[in-house]
This record gives sequence, C-alpha cells and structure tokens, in this order.
Amino acid sequence: MTTVAHEDVRAAAGRIGGLALRTPVFEISPGFFLKLELLQHSGSFKVRGAFNRILSAGELPDGGVIAASGGNHGLAVAYAARELGVRAEIFVPEVTSPVKLAGLQALGAHITQTGAIYSEAAEAAAKRAAETGALTVHAYDQPEVIAGQGTTGLEIAEQTGGVDTVVVAVGGGGFAAGITLGTEGAASPGAVVSPGAVASPGAAAEASGEGPRIVAVEPERIPTLRAALEAGRPVPVEVSGVGADALGASKIGGLAFEILSGPRVESVLVADDAIMAARRTLWQRHHIAAEAAGAAAYAAVLSGVYTPGPGERVAVVVCGSNTDPATLTT
Amino acid sequence: MTTVAHEDVRAAAGRIGGLALRTPVFEISPGFFLKLELLQHSGSFKVRGAFNRILSAGELPDGGVIAASGGNHGLAVAYAARELGVRAEIFVPEVTSPVKLAGLQALGAHITQTGAIYSEAAEAAAKRAAETGALTVHAYDQPEVIAGQGTTGLEIAEQTGGVDTVVVAVGGGGFAAGITLGTEGAASPGAVVSPGAVASPGAAAEASGEGPRIVAVEPERIPTLRAALEAGRPVPVEVSGVGADALGASKIGGLAFEILSGPRVESVLVADDAIMAARRTLWQRHHIAAEAAGAAAYAAVLSGVYTPGPGERVAVVVCGSNTDPATLTT
Repeated sequence: MTTVAHEDVRAAAGRIGGLALRTPVFEISPGFFLKLELLQHSGSFKVRGAFNRILSAGELPDGGVIAASGGNHGLAVAYAARELGVRAEIFVPEVTSPVKLAGLQALGAHITQTGAIYSEAAEAAAKRAAETGALTVHAYDQPEVIAGQGTTGLEIAEQTGGVDTVVVAVGGGGFAAGITLGTEGAASPGAVVSPGAVASPGAAAEASGEGPRIVAVEPERIPTLRAALEAGRPVPVEVSGVGADALGASKIGGLAFEILSGPRVESVLVADDAIMAARRTLWQRHHIAAEAAGAAAYAAVLSGVYTPGPGERVAVVVCGSNTDPATLTT
Repeated sequence: MTTVAHEDVRAAAGRIGGLALRTPVFEISPGFFLKLELLQHSGSFKVRGAFNRILSAGELPDGGVIAASGGNHGLAVAYAARELGVRAEIFVPEVTSPVKLAGLQALGAHITQTGAIYSEAAEAAAKRAAETGALTVHAYDQPEVIAGQGTTGLEIAEQTGGVDTVVVAVGGGGFAAGITLGTEGAASPGAVVSPGAVASPGAAAEASGEGPRIVAVEPERIPTLRAALEAGRPVPVEVSGVGADALGASKIGGLAFEILSGPRVESVLVADDAIMAARRTLWQRHHIAAEAAGAAAYAAVLSGVYTPGPGERVAVVVCGSNTDPATLTT
C-alpha cells in the first residue's frame, strides 16, 4: 500500500492546471512519440511537483519554501515560488553548473551556495528549514511531488490516444513513479510484450491490463533503481557520469521504490556514450535542445537497450533542457 | 483567380503525409499557441513544399532535382531528395552560413558554391538546370511549393481546434500564402477584429467568414510584401538585417502576392532588435531554439506590433531552427 495513488495524480492535475504547461507530444514516426516535457516552465518536469507540493500545503509559513538542489529541482521550486508570490530559498552545492546558477538568480531565489556535494547542501538546507519553519520541497521523495510529476503521465495517455510503453529516465525516481501512477488504467492499445529488458518480477505476465509498461532508464553509472531492485530495498550507489547533473540522486526514493518495484516497470541501463549520442541526435535530427539527462530515455531506444516490438506504441519522455546550448554541437 | 487553391493544399497533405512531420502545437497560455514548425525535418517548413513539388512531378529526369539556396530551402530540397532517393544539386552563394553548409553536406547533396549573392547562385542554377533537365524546386514561387507549405495551415486548424489569427513570417511569401489557403474555411471561433495592423483593403469588413486572419510579419529591413501592397505589384526591395539569412527574398513571389493581397491578410513589420529579443525569449522562457527568421512572427506579438484582442485565439508559427545554438545565449 503506497501513500500516493492515481487519484492523487488526478487531484494534482486540477491543482496545477494553468500553472504548469501541458507540453506537446511529437509523433516523430508512426506510433513513436516524444513527450516534450523539456519545454515545461523552468525547463523540466520538476515544476509540476513543486507547484503541487506548495499548493497542497495550505497556508505557507513566513519562511516560504526551501529546497536543496543545484539543478532542475531548484529552478522549478524558484519558478513556482515566484509565480505564487512566495519566498524561496535554494541551497546549492559549490559544483552547480553556471547555466543553472544563472537561471536561479534570474528567478529571484535566495541562493546559498554551500558544501562540496549535494548532500552537504541538503544538510545545510535542512538545518535552515528547522530554524525558519519554511516548507521543504523535496526533489522526489514526497507524495505531493510524485503526484505532481505524475500529471505528465495523464497527459501522455490523453495526447497520444494511448501507448503500450512509456520510456522515462530515473534519478531519485519521483518522475517515473509519478508517471507509473498517472498512466494507471490508461488505454494500452497493443499490450505488446517486448524482449530484452530486465523486468521486475512478474512483468511479463502482468504488464497488460494495468496501463502501459514503464521502461525506467538509468545511466549505467547511477543505477539507483537497478541496485534497489537487486537488493530489495533502496541502497546507495556511486554517482558519476554525464547524467550526474540531473539524475544524481545517490539512492532511489523510498516512495518511488514502492511504486517502481511493481509489475509494470522494467529497469534498463544506458551508457554515457549512448546518452550523449541521443542528445546529439535530438538536436541534429529533431532540433530539440535537451540536456544529457533529458536525453537518457531516448538513448535507451536509440541504442537498442530497449527495442519496441512491431506495432508497439511508445512514448519517450524528453524531460530537461537546462543546458548550455553551445555544447549541443560538440 | 489564382493557380493554387485550398484543394491543392488538401491534395498536398495526402501526398506528403508520412514524409513531412505533423509538428506539434504548444499552448503557452490560454488560447495562445506556438506551432513548432521548427521541429520539422531539415529544421524548417520548407520540406513540405519540396516534397510536394517533387512528388507532383511524376517521373523525374535523370538530372534529379535542382535548387538555389544557401539556406533552409536548400536543406529541405536536399533532405526530400535523399528521402526519395533522388539526386539533388544545390547552388549556394558564397555567403552561406557554415551551419547550413554543413547541413547540406551531411544530407549528401551535390553542392556548388558560386556567386557573391543569392541571385548569382540562382542564375548559375538556372543555367545548369537548362543543361541537365533537372526538376527545379523554387523556394516559394511555384504552385506545388505553396500548396505544400499550406499543409501547415491545415494542421494549425486541426490541432488548435480553431484560431482567430495566424501570425507567420514572410520572405518570398510562399509559406504565408500557403497557410492562407490552408486555413481557408477553417473554424475561427471568435472572429475578433483587432486594431493596429495595416490591413489590406477591405480587411476589416471581410476578415470574418473565410477563415482566420493572417498576420504577415516581415522584418522592417526586408519589407517585400509591404512594398508590394503599397505598389500594387511585386517590387524589389533592399535586403539586410538579421532575417536576411532566411527571409532574404528581394521581391515577393507573384503567386504569393496574389494570395497575400487578399482581404484576410494584414501586413506588419518588426525591427531587428525585436526579432532578436523574441529569439532570446523563445530560448530562455520556452527552451525553443529558433533561428532569427524563425522568431520573427513571435516578435510581432512580443513587441506589441500585433496585439491580440481579449479572448482572441492566436497561433504563432515558429518556422526555422537552423542556427548555431551557441548564439542563443549571446
């Protein structure tokens, strides 16, 4: 029994409608859709969860909202807070990319840059939150955040007219978990079962009937979900590689793991080279400017780690665009 | 009586379906849509016309197809020819941008770089076509090209559920003319009449009933349509400024002028600064990587040259992405 369910995603959709954008889907070949979530406000899906978390809180404390993130989550919380007229404090580690730091500054967030790595910034943020009473917006491990991200799944089901499979990147797991809930019960026209992916127990037998298969894609060098599926519980992993900037959680979220260890979810891993190749292809062939992590899901298909079966309808989520565009052609 | 009509656009849609992409529309605020035609194959709408022209020709000559263009048209013809297995020769002037030249090379076109300016390259291409018998694909002034571009208009009408106004950039006029034909008779929910734009004779009286208003946007420094509307016929203008790379026709096409001098069309001009500001906004706020000319239509709205009325439903076409992405943040 999870503490967040499909109905929470529906409630989130009502709450954040008109604040988060309904990003377009783009059918680049018959039955193969890109969900262009990188066009979302603040450049990633993360605003969905941020809006839902903040709007679910009722009266906000004087301290406003607080988050630790040197990346898309921080941008999203800063954006949502600005739109809602709420004070936002964002704690970022010293390694934060210049593009994202400039974005945070432009959004008017109060920024504290501290700690060599993310966990140190997070500790400092927790300490500060205890002092000020600010509402903490977690990057992935809160029910309201997962429900908010899941609204992407509702849209995919509606905009595509139904798919058999959704391919999505996993960092802390909140987005993939939300999409799993959001697509629950959605029409899955083909119910095609594909070979090749490492499935959760029971996936082959139960993949149809509950909604589309969720292919959860992780960089080989940050396998938080894979490690948890193998261990039977969230366990820490080493974090490195091109996805670390945005998929750099060192452990899958507890709530996300409950959902992602279900029968509809398959875990696949992609190499860093494949991620960068997918990013280049998105730009050169489709004129879409994604960050590395945002291209990870597409990399799974392009590199053949996940190969759709004949007639299988697939939606691939391209989920982040906060990148220096000068690096798209390198 | 024009030589190209709405039915030709419908026929083109049947011909090029599955070759040109149905690009997404993106509702960035209620009733305000971006048609993301910059995500089209080859990075602009031009493939629609190229495919329709080539597929309308029946048996192709041994010489294949030929075009003169240092820009999006050349890329589109090269792309369409490659997809159809046809030889393509593209004549480009010496000023062609490195990004577009590299794109042409990657598509396997036979490139001849000649002439200081476009018209010299075009002359050389015409001479070569006379020698080889290759099928000429014009950048804008052929009925099949206009009908192909017009399929964008059919899609806008379908994907938005109807708009009052379409805002589109004008170079040689083929795209705007095609969209005018493609949206003919389409539902126009509001039939709002707005102030401020310079209308063709009779626009205020006749703007409703025949389809949405077409706001034809030109850079102030390349006013081919405006000059033609004032002179009553196509006349040459000086070409300069940030749009010259892709909106650099020195005279509106004759076929396009017939269509664009009709009552549904309003001509507006935008300054180069406004175009560059719109391009930056598309990137910073919406994560869309447009070239300058591709942002010209959005510039008309963003700069207030065209201000939609209350409740007016508007589609703005973002039509080209062939740019060095490093320049998006400068």
